[in-house]
Amino acid sequence: MSDTAEDLTGVGIGRGLAVGPILRMPEPLPEPTDVTSTIGADAEKVRVAGALAATAADIRLRGQRAGGAAKDVLDAQAFMAEDPTLKDDVDARLAAGKTAERAVYEAFAAFRDLLTSMGGYMGERATDLNDVSQRVVAHLQGVAAPGVPDPSYPFILVARDLAPADTALLDLDKVLALVTSDGGPTSHTAILAREKAIVAVVGAAGALELADDQIVIVDAVAGTVSVAPTEAEQKAAAATIAARAAAADAPVGPGALADGTHVPLLANLGSVDGALPAIEKGAEGVGLFRTEFLFLDADRAPTVEEQQEKYTQLLTAFAGKKVVVRALDAGADKPLSFLNDEPEENPALGLRGLRALRANEPILRDQLTALANADAATDAELWVMAPMVSTVEETRYFTKLARELGIKTAGVMIEVPAAALLADRILPDTDFASIGTNDLTQYTLAADRLLGSVASFQDPWHPAVLRLVGEVGRAGVAVGKPVGICGEAAADPLLAVVLVGLGATSLSMSPAALADVRTELARYTLQQAKEFAEIALSADSAVEARVAVLAAASSLTTNNTESE
Amino acid sequence: MSDTAEDLTGVGIGRGLAVGPILRMPEPLPEPTDVTSTIGADAEKVRVAGALAATAADIRLRGQRAGGAAKDVLDAQAFMAEDPTLKDDVDARLAAGKTAERAVYEAFAAFRDLLTSMGGYMGERATDLNDVSQRVVAHLQGVAAPGVPDPSYPFILVARDLAPADTALLDLDKVLALVTSDGGPTSHTAILAREKAIVAVVGAAGALELADDQIVIVDAVAGTVSVAPTEAEQKAAAATIAARAAAADAPVGPGALADGTHVPLLANLGSVDGALPAIEKGAEGVGLFRTEFLFLDADRAPTVEEQQEKYTQLLTAFAGKKVVVRALDAGADKPLSFLNDEPEENPALGLRGLRALRANEPILRDQLTALANADAATDAELWVMAPMVSTVEETRYFTKLARELGIKTAGVMIEVPAAALLADRILPDTDFASIGTNDLTQYTLAADRLLGSVASFQDPWHPAVLRLVGEVGRAGVAVGKPVGICGEAAADPLLAVVLVGLGATSLSMSPAALADVRTELARYTLQQAKEFAEIALSADSAVEARVAVLAAASSLTTNNTESE
Repeated sequence: MSDTAEDLTGVGIGRGLAVGPILRMPEPLPEPTDVTSTIGADAEKVRVAGALAATAADIRLRGQRAGGAAKDVLDAQAFMAEDPTLKDDVDARLAAGKTAERAVYEAFAAFRDLLTSMGGYMGERATDLNDVSQRVVAHLQGVAAPGVPDPSYPFILVARDLAPADTALLDLDKVLALVTSDGGPTSHTAILAREKAIVAVVGAAGALELADDQIVIVDAVAGTVSVAPTEAEQKAAAATIAARAAAADAPVGPGALADGTHVPLLANLGSVDGALPAIEKGAEGVGLFRTEFLFLDADRAPTVEEQQEKYTQLLTAFAGKKVVVRALDAGADKPLSFLNDEPEENPALGLRGLRALRANEPILRDQLTALANADAATDAELWVMAPMVSTVEETRYFTKLARELGIKTAGVMIEVPAAALLADRILPDTDFASIGTNDLTQYTLAADRLLGSVASFQDPWHPAVLRLVGEVGRAGVAVGKPVGICGEAAADPLLAVVLVGLGATSLSMSPAALADVRTELARYTLQQAKEFAEIALSADSAVEARVAVLAAASSLTTNNTESE
Repeated sequence: MSDTAEDLTGVGIGRGLAVGPILRMPEPLPEPTDVTSTIGADAEKVRVAGALAATAADIRLRGQRAGGAAKDVLDAQAFMAEDPTLKDDVDARLAAGKTAERAVYEAFAAFRDLLTSMGGYMGERATDLNDVSQRVVAHLQGVAAPGVPDPSYPFILVARDLAPADTALLDLDKVLALVTSDGGPTSHTAILAREKAIVAVVGAAGALELADDQIVIVDAVAGTVSVAPTEAEQKAAAATIAARAAAADAPVGPGALADGTHVPLLANLGSVDGALPAIEKGAEGVGLFRTEFLFLDADRAPTVEEQQEKYTQLLTAFAGKKVVVRALDAGADKPLSFLNDEPEENPALGLRGLRALRANEPILRDQLTALANADAATDAELWVMAPMVSTVEETRYFTKLARELGIKTAGVMIEVPAAALLADRILPDTDFASIGTNDLTQYTLAADRLLGSVASFQDPWHPAVLRLVGEVGRAGVAVGKPVGICGEAAADPLLAVVLVGLGATSLSMSPAALADVRTELARYTLQQAKEFAEIALSADSAVEARVAVLAAASSLTTNNTESE
């Protein structure tokens, strides 16, 4: 890779690599300068009503075409365009003699500024308001809303920060990678890139100064954009991309260490649709099935029957295999109005996970009942776990309730430091534990996993996080209970080896990561994995831990090669 | 205390007890129903401008009279009354023909609803908006704004939830206690009750059904309101109140265990004004001096000279004693626009404490320079510590910078689980540690310390929290470095004994708690404190830990009495 001084760095999303020409997003519309209406308030009102309705319909249509997480985001935007309070404000400005364009611009800007000036924490939604405002104004002016370029060849899209309406319409067959100058791991660009498995580097300062059609190499693992790669570097990158694609497509066996120790490699899934692709990539089951999709679109909880149908589909797809389903994990970044609509200053520290379910026990009972029914009707091995368990008492509550309702294997997610610290008292009272490393890291380092300015703290290699994982692993060994990992840490191949050394008995990850992790695990024995774990635990920082284990692994690989 | 079924329970603030008759807050103004203006938009505009200005001035005046935290809250409310965006919205509604009352009511309501409907986390500020709106409308209608009752005798004030403008004007000589039906530990009622040391129970459902002049006993420790106390119970309560007042006024010596082990008892202070009262209550120094007051009113950081003057006053007041100053702890619930004005979804997990200072190093350098200058000019023993340290690397950064700038003793606050878990690597690189138990508990249990719905998790007796405290204590002993406690846990007398057993070498608290803690410490030896710590650590929950230690302490006290 080129090491010229102009290379850009940012936060990489995913593990991929891309090489190709860039194209930049067009700049936003200018501020409407025609302030005073010449056609009168009534006529302007008609124009505004039409533009708001058309924009909402347009956004909603894009959402339907895009599906998935993009649909939720776009539906929320459509809702903004239809917000009666905003409409009233626009109308009041029209009554004062403004043009429709100006009234829309000012009303949206005023709401956005109010949110900011009052010290709110609504940055993401402020961006959404801007985007909706632009689309309405563009509609009024009869011009095209700023949108994604659509050339005839594959390209790398460069932007300040992508709005949901843009990312939803990307032609994935043509977009090799996304690069943004602003935005962090919290941005929609990052969230959608993760979901769609698009190579991305976000927050890469200087990206906007790149020229259209300039060839770059985007490396998500390193978080870099090489801006002047040599011919040789481009070829090497293309070869790496091809090799990675081939490895992902190769026939696969179960996950195992070099000494034959079986480490089941499972898939994190968010919907039933993901089942077949995961099995094709060699998933030995599901380590984390998120059930939020069943609840997110509704203003009420789905019925037992509605849920049972979906769970039956899932368990049928994994007949004979283990499927770990997580009970509804609402709250924090996934609020559900019927579970908890209290405003919270810090939703990540609020009434979420099992706390919210317990405050709404009928919803939890329905879900467990639907799962038990689906289990009885199918041949998969169903395990069910509670999210965000903090105490021994919560562990007893959930395990008892789940068993009462017919769940054969009930466990808890360890995401809160207190639960890891008391793992020796939690594991005897339940059937298994699964460590959610994303949240565990967030709480252990007190650093929001979605906030760019503290991203340097959000590293599961941190020795404090690994120590907590080790506590849970040790507790699992002591009482003979399985301890899985289902956070993104399991998708980092070398860290996956360390986690096994700390006592993890299975690893669950995005299916795209299975091939890399399987390859890496096969390189080391359990004893070596334990040595790596000790090396990581004795480091002073995440960076030191990673470097030290990498050095130990490299020296082993070198020795292995020499002795061959 | 009466055990009739009607007793109310809520969240107690502080440690006091009160007995007396209750009076209820009057209900709010009704919604203005005169919608259409009969005097024309221009005349209404004049009325609104006058009412907004008068309300802002009135609120600001109340703030000046109240001082302290109330002043900050009320200044923020005055700012809302002067918000140009809100004014524009009111004017737009006037232009559409509405009355001033109706336009004000609708504009404030619209902004409040928008905040809520968009899923914001601005609940507290929505309440403030309502309060300002009521005051403006009352001014327009020429009626008195709903306010606190003001009888000629001492009373217990009962309300749904008190607005800052109300609590600021309470005649403290007459208010025995505050009881609210709504609101949690996050409410202004709770915050101001803490600051003014008013006995309070918040979130006591059913409180509004109490009758005026009904006698009740309010117990902040138990979080109860006894609604039908017997004559004997009232007398017992009065005796307890008198005994507690006498103990607080008794002459005091240094803090020590029964075996003579010295445990310095220090004061948490938020301003220089608190110095003399703290010394009168026997504070042996300052364990936590918060410096935010120097920064909160300003839109820029104070100069080195401005800060130096305040620090010199503080150190002069504590000549010959230890004074631990915390570097500016901005962010989270104390945002400062010149440090960090990025919106954050979870500010408690954001760019706060040392993270924010490091991103604005000139501000940190100025503060450390001002502290070093003040130290050189006075005779107190100045220690300076960084808030919210998470990593070994941050420890090294702060300690090195502080020493470079002339600070003789530099340490770190342990509030993040990662820092406690790596205490053995942090303490060798700094001079001392001080454990902030409030934040440490918040992060370890992943439960917002200011959120009522998760208050049951926010308990520093939790064995996981105590284990982290013990890790830091052990690391301190290993390298011979002091480990203080400066969270509210130190103000719980029995927990204070446990903390000493876990290795804490000093305790810092609100001066009001010094007498109770001093008395409790003197009852036990260091060996007994260590036994209590072991008992607490082996419990499964905070409640079990408290009950088990209380039982052990009671049996010791009984044995001591028997053997006398």
